[in-house]
Amino acid sequence: MIIIMEPRATQEQIDRVVKAMENKGFRININTGDVMTVIAAIGDKRLMQPASIASFDGVREVKLIQEPFKLASRESQNDDTVIDLGNGVKIGGAQRPIVMAGPCSVEENLDGLLEIAKSVKAAGAKILRGGAFKPRTSPYEFQGLEEVGLKYLSQASKETDLLIVTEVMDTNTVELVAEYTDIMQVGARNMQNFKLLKALGEIGKPVMLKRGPAATIREFLLAAEHIMYNGNPNVILCERGIKGIDSQYSRNTLDIASIPIIKRYSHLPVIVDPSHATGRRYLIEPMSKASLVAGAHGLMVEVHNDPDNALCDGAQSLTLSMFDDMMQTLNKLMDILGYEQNKATV
Amino acid sequence: MIIIMEPRATQEQIDRVVKAMENKGFRININTGDVMTVIAAIGDKRLMQPASIASFDGVREVKLIQEPFKLASRESQNDDTVIDLGNGVKIGGAQRPIVMAGPCSVEENLDGLLEIAKSVKAAGAKILRGGAFKPRTSPYEFQGLEEVGLKYLSQASKETDLLIVTEVMDTNTVELVAEYTDIMQVGARNMQNFKLLKALGEIGKPVMLKRGPAATIREFLLAAEHIMYNGNPNVILCERGIKGIDSQYSRNTLDIASIPIIKRYSHLPVIVDPSHATGRRYLIEPMSKASLVAGAHGLMVEVHNDPDNALCDGAQSLTLSMFDDMMQTLNKLMDILGYEQNKATV
Amino acid sequence: MIIIMEPRATQEQIDRVVKAMENKGFRININTGDVMTVIAAIGDKRLMQPASIASFDGVREVKLIQEPFKLASRESQNDDTVIDLGNGVKIGGAQRPIVMAGPCSVEENLDGLLEIAKSVKAAGAKILRGGAFKPRTSPYEFQGLEEVGLKYLSQASKETDLLIVTEVMDTNTVELVAEYTDIMQVGARNMQNFKLLKALGEIGKPVMLKRGPAATIREFLLAAEHIMYNGNPNVILCERGIKGIDSQYSRNTLDIASIPIIKRYSHLPVIVDPSHATGRRYLIEPMSKASLVAGAHGLMVEVHNDPDNALCDGAQSLTLSMFDDMMQTLNKLMDILGYEQNKATV
Amino acid sequence: MIIIMEPRATQEQIDRVVKAMENKGFRININTGDVMTVIAAIGDKRLMQPASIASFDGVREVKLIQEPFKLASRESQNDDTVIDLGNGVKIGGAQRPIVMAGPCSVEENLDGLLEIAKSVKAAGAKILRGGAFKPRTSPYEFQGLEEVGLKYLSQASKETDLLIVTEVMDTNTVELVAEYTDIMQVGARNMQNFKLLKALGEIGKPVMLKRGPAATIREFLLAAEHIMYNGNPNVILCERGIKGIDSQYSRNTLDIASIPIIKRYSHLPVIVDPSHATGRRYLIEPMSKASLVAGAHGLMVEVHNDPDNALCDGAQSLTLSMFDDMMQTLNKLMDILGYEQNKATV
Repeated sequence: MIIIMEPRATQEQIDRVVKAMENKGFRININTGDVMTVIAAIGDKRLMQPASIASFDGVREVKLIQEPFKLASRESQNDDTVIDLGNGVKIGGAQRPIVMAGPCSVEENLDGLLEIAKSVKAAGAKILRGGAFKPRTSPYEFQGLEEVGLKYLSQASKETDLLIVTEVMDTNTVELVAEYTDIMQVGARNMQNFKLLKALGEIGKPVMLKRGPAATIREFLLAAEHIMYNGNPNVILCERGIKGIDSQYSRNTLDIASIPIIKRYSHLPVIVDPSHATGRRYLIEPMSKASLVAGAHGLMVEVHNDPDNALCDGAQSLTLSMFDDMMQTLNKLMDILGYEQNKATV
Repeated sequence: MIIIMEPRATQEQIDRVVKAMENKGFRININTGDVMTVIAAIGDKRLMQPASIASFDGVREVKLIQEPFKLASRESQNDDTVIDLGNGVKIGGAQRPIVMAGPCSVEENLDGLLEIAKSVKAAGAKILRGGAFKPRTSPYEFQGLEEVGLKYLSQASKETDLLIVTEVMDTNTVELVAEYTDIMQVGARNMQNFKLLKALGEIGKPVMLKRGPAATIREFLLAAEHIMYNGNPNVILCERGIKGIDSQYSRNTLDIASIPIIKRYSHLPVIVDPSHATGRRYLIEPMSKASLVAGAHGLMVEVHNDPDNALCDGAQSLTLSMFDDMMQTLNKLMDILGYEQNKATV
Repeated sequence: MIIIMEPRATQEQIDRVVKAMENKGFRININTGDVMTVIAAIGDKRLMQPASIASFDGVREVKLIQEPFKLASRESQNDDTVIDLGNGVKIGGAQRPIVMAGPCSVEENLDGLLEIAKSVKAAGAKILRGGAFKPRTSPYEFQGLEEVGLKYLSQASKETDLLIVTEVMDTNTVELVAEYTDIMQVGARNMQNFKLLKALGEIGKPVMLKRGPAATIREFLLAAEHIMYNGNPNVILCERGIKGIDSQYSRNTLDIASIPIIKRYSHLPVIVDPSHATGRRYLIEPMSKASLVAGAHGLMVEVHNDPDNALCDGAQSLTLSMFDDMMQTLNKLMDILGYEQNKATV
Repeated sequence: MIIIMEPRATQEQIDRVVKAMENKGFRININTGDVMTVIAAIGDKRLMQPASIASFDGVREVKLIQEPFKLASRESQNDDTVIDLGNGVKIGGAQRPIVMAGPCSVEENLDGLLEIAKSVKAAGAKILRGGAFKPRTSPYEFQGLEEVGLKYLSQASKETDLLIVTEVMDTNTVELVAEYTDIMQVGARNMQNFKLLKALGEIGKPVMLKRGPAATIREFLLAAEHIMYNGNPNVILCERGIKGIDSQYSRNTLDIASIPIIKRYSHLPVIVDPSHATGRRYLIEPMSKASLVAGAHGLMVEVHNDPDNALCDGAQSLTLSMFDDMMQTLNKLMDILGYEQNKATV
């Protein structure tokens, strides 16, 4: 930790800070400049309870040196985490990227879901996505079929041998959702629902954690840390675009650079959701390709057999044939490039 | 709803959109320009389930005309909501602004809490704030005393006759927290925890809803709508700064204009939390004054008897005497200005 | 300067950085932690040419300790700058806040301009604003009357004894504009037009520098530094809102906290333009009041005798009578509060 | 144009708006809903001078239907613009993507520049970049060699047959820079320096326009429109990252989706500068690959023979051998993918 004192800080104020930090077990180096004094406090910030040093008189600013996440960091684990999702499907490291596909929400029409599942399976997807519990910005929108939706997903899984990923919205339904799904999804707006993260840390299932709508990468990795700290090392990170200054042509700004950045600072697998990131059908394919060549370990794509009548997000869903076409392009790209690129970038 | 067709949309595509909207009960006006066609679909968007019109071929963009929130809007209720919090304390409309004050988190030291409570009461605060359940970005930080913290708050309330506001973090603890507090606080990072909003809609207590770190005003009012839609009209909105491009000198950007904007579009009371907004002690007083003259119905301020040893957010907490000084200034300002300004701005 | 080495940096890489910094005249303190090494390089970064230390192998990050602006900083000048604008009008420090008012652009109708000038003068404005050279996002919009506009402003000044502030858009017209105006305005989108800043540094007139649409406070003060470094100490800073995540209800996000922040780090006067910040007429008065109580040294407000037919920004212009009403409120507020608050906040 | 009236707007207010728009030559459709009235005004907004309709009483909001840029839009020109830069080098449409490479700034060491030029030429770059006039955030940083730098670039061009791209900073030096360079670069912070854009519209040389640090895509295309409107159709757009909420790990947020978006709405070529976008050497290659597969017509990359001693931006410059390695990968990628993807996405 670096403590920058005000230019006018008195020697007494400096001494007070130094003493307080020493009392907390830090080794201290004082760097006295012509204008201001900088105190380097060496020790593990993460084990220190009162981070209150910034409130001392004469302190201008406290800067962290070490990243505040630990279990999620490359420093604590150098090798890429590869998660075995079951059915022979693995994600992370130099594994071939995995595609998750399916409708935004599971709807009443089970046949439609089965049609989608068979079609995306044939096109090369390994995991079926679909929301049974739907977080909606407005209370007037479709909130999902809940347990019925989970049962439908389960049936689609049986008929296609696809794995399932679906969202869990609160602590009360963690066990219910875990009965039906292979991967527990945390939605972007729940990224800092810490009680939910804790509950997911305590179960065995892999978790797919979406980046919050305005989360920094540090906050994103700290959210993963909550899950890992509570006992579950199997966290898949999902970049899905962040809020930006321009939402005219794309719902969010897809932060593709976050892929190599996350891979530098963390060993966890990272995938991309181009559908929610852009909200526009014509942007899915170019953003999927860009994500893969930038090193993503997978993609999550919305596909619907009848987007015009989808109960949510029709405008960003690919049709079955569009998805099929895209997968041919992506598979070609993956075959050519290999997955060496997907190893750690450090 | 305004549906803007692509310049190259065919007549067939236009007809298809028109027919679909008519089937959903909308009246249609077609505006044919030289370059593109614009379809005005008149009816209540909020009652329409499939918002999928944007996915039709030939559609460039769909724009909402009417705000998507209803119960929270000035159109559904013209008069300001005034919430009776108990103890003769009312918030909203032309009521004198209310100050909530107290420590970031309730700590082991009950005497310290009592000292703070008595001091802020003497200075003019009406409500004691303090976190028993603490959402923390990092799992390595103090997470709160939980029920013990609630008991401490309750005792402080008994000794001072202050009302209590404290945060509830998930659906599992709604009932527990409701036993002890007068106002249920929803933290910024839970603003779109829809299961929690629903649960708070179903209880009788007033709710203080904080604006999400990057929530638009529309999203903020839609989150309030979730609570109201589920049966609870007593929602207090709290502006606490939004993420911006500059976090060098202030933790967030306090959006003071949101106060008159919210008052124009909604009848709900709106308060400001300058402590979390700025993260800097020296900014609390100017931002408090600015919020009040801009029409805020109240303030929520962090105060601690010993900020240097606070378990959270010491750097932004006022000392007891700083708070006392500030309240004298704020009271003078309120006396002079009156609260006519706090009436609806429409 | 603090140089944070990668956790895996070798001793050789550390030595190489140390040697390079010593060669550039820095004193070095090495802080060796358990995980990584931090090198404190003490000396004046601003005098160092090659800031390339971040490119050395093994360097994770370089953090500045000292603010990179110098002449604009409180450290180089403790007392507030008070600028004498002529006519007995002074701005800055504990001077009574100054109001600048007038139309967005100077239009063909000279009588209209004179009507506005007389009216704002009567209401208490000290300076007439109006654009003769207009930067416009689209080339299809009115670009201003240019020199004719300057002459009109000059005539309005003669008839009312108001001072003039008007925008200069490029180096070619600096001399021309300087002939007619008392304050040279730099528009937000020109905040980092460094050739223009340099040219304005070389003339004697006071400069009003608007904050760029997404400029950090540090970039803003560095832009002022360009003017001061080139010889002109008379810089007035103008906060006018920054781009944010929500432009639905307000054009920009007015960053009112920037006022006390700038006053802490700089001695320069700072004013606020609520008209461009919000783009909405009903927000001008609450934002003006909030700016004044937060410590602004002045305001710049758009006023038009016939906003419905204004050639630019009619929607954010006050009518003459609205401005008159607002000034009565603002004057009352200023009388009551005094200007002690406007002194340095350090 | 869509004019949304307030729910409480009177019939008189509605009539007044309608009459004003009709007077300006618009055809009017009135859409009367249950809650509010929406007026569709059909005609060419771009030819309308007073956009003041938003200031009328009773108007809630005015929404544009048609994009405000015209010459830059796909509607005015369906086929991709392909610019012949000379020397057989063409950019845009289905042309093989072009790589521009070279140092951030041209330095005193001419031999160094020649070494870089020869090396990037051998690796496959077609254009040499290098700043002779350098916009710098701080006045204490290296501002460029000015005309000497231009002469050096010219000599490097002669010895290697590379084309030259270099920045022009103000109207005063347009002619001087044009003498030496093949492409005139407008820096991000000058994107809305309208006098400069106008001057560049009046010369014949191709212009490379960088996206402003917080410019929306609409503002970006309107800036291009300024150049085209003034007579120069040869504009290359350059995405270089926008300011975001997280600058911890990447200087800016590279908005890769802007490539297919711009190609949908405009016929102009679009390239990417991954160096300024990220500011980190290890991010250049993944972002370059991602940009190409997303459809970019070219790249601009910083390369230096001795980044540790570069006078600017060493930390983001590739070494000669890193650039060479990257180009092999990029060339392989381009060979495999072909450039069909680079055609218009409409």
